[in-house]
Amino acid sequence: MSLIQQLVLEFKRLPGVGEKTAQRFVYSLLKKSNQDPIRLSNQIREVVEKVRPCSSCGKFTELGECEICTNPSRDMSLICVVEEAHEVEAVEKSRSYSGLYHVLGGKLSPLDGIGPQELNLASLFERIKREGSIVQEVIIATNSSVEGEATAVYLEAVIRPLGPRVSRLARGIPVGGDLEYVDTSTIVEAMDRRTEM
Amino acid sequence: MSLIQQLVLEFKRLPGVGEKTAQRFVYSLLKKSNQDPIRLSNQIREVVEKVRPCSSCGKFTELGECEICTNPSRDMSLICVVEEAHEVEAVEKSRSYSGLYHVLGGKLSPLDGIGPQELNLASLFERIKREGSIVQEVIIATNSSVEGEATAVYLEAVIRPLGPRVSRLARGIPVGGDLEYVDTSTIVEAMDRRTEM
Repeated sequence: MSLIQQLVLEFKRLPGVGEKTAQRFVYSLLKKSNQDPIRLSNQIREVVEKVRPCSSCGKFTELGECEICTNPSRDMSLICVVEEAHEVEAVEKSRSYSGLYHVLGGKLSPLDGIGPQELNLASLFERIKREGSIVQEVIIATNSSVEGEATAVYLEAVIRPLGPRVSRLARGIPVGGDLEYVDTSTIVEAMDRRTEM
Repeated sequence: MSLIQQLVLEFKRLPGVGEKTAQRFVYSLLKKSNQDPIRLSNQIREVVEKVRPCSSCGKFTELGECEICTNPSRDMSLICVVEEAHEVEAVEKSRSYSGLYHVLGGKLSPLDGIGPQELNLASLFERIKREGSIVQEVIIATNSSVEGEATAVYLEAVIRPLGPRVSRLARGIPVGGDLEYVDTSTIVEAMDRRTEM
């Protein structure tokens, strides 16, 4: 197999990349039209060598403890629990939250053999116990899938006895969402949880 | 800027990759779920260091002269001229052609400052002159865009006086194409060039 074909295969392992896209990537690198391929190569190596999960929350960081966990101006009484590290960025971008995070690194999925032991849970429970009365509320922001819901129910059952309030992100019609295109179960939830104006 | 952000920026330079896709790439590499990032990094470096345009046709290859130019069973009387190296793969995949190729590395586009000097043309003309009577036909397979057509017209004007026949890929309704969805100019061409059954 030629070097080009090998690199096409390797690019195809990236999420959402098929044969044609992988070929376009390789030829784009070869034409050096828009980038420096050696810099890309070096940065990939640097990221996987230097970036590690934060020792406290599990978010990826090149520091031992991430910039959110070590930021004294964050509200330490709140912990927002997300499934994956990149979901932290989504919440941060909304500028609606100033507390800390905890990244599970997945969700409960017994069929795939992912139980509580496979998730980054022990450190969350330890953190809540250790920091005792500091943690007032744990906001569960797992996805609204079946596994995400199951994970939320499990977390609520384990965390509530430890002391903090446990909350869940609100569900309903997305902002700007057209009722016509919103799925039925979302409308059912939105109707059930309607709020007085 | 963090290492992750730098790598996101670098991935965004790939064709068709936006912010979200670049982030997914980085997190996929960090989770090492489906690939070995160091191998990807090494292969990118190896490809850009070892792969060069073929000294004869301009197609990318890790050999000095590519596997098509050096294959004695290819028909040396035919040269198919394409704009970009990856278009060679498309023609090869069709298994409809057994001659040689020549890669222009672009198309004439005066507005972007790309004239004949900027394309891999000199070596094509030299090849036709040098190999004299061997080259019987030059098939122009530039794209069917305005610039592709202009390039074809230019090539025809320069190559015909050198001896070989000059032909152009047929245009018309794509195989499996639904008349309803074919654009008007393609229908006009297909009507003009209709063939007797």
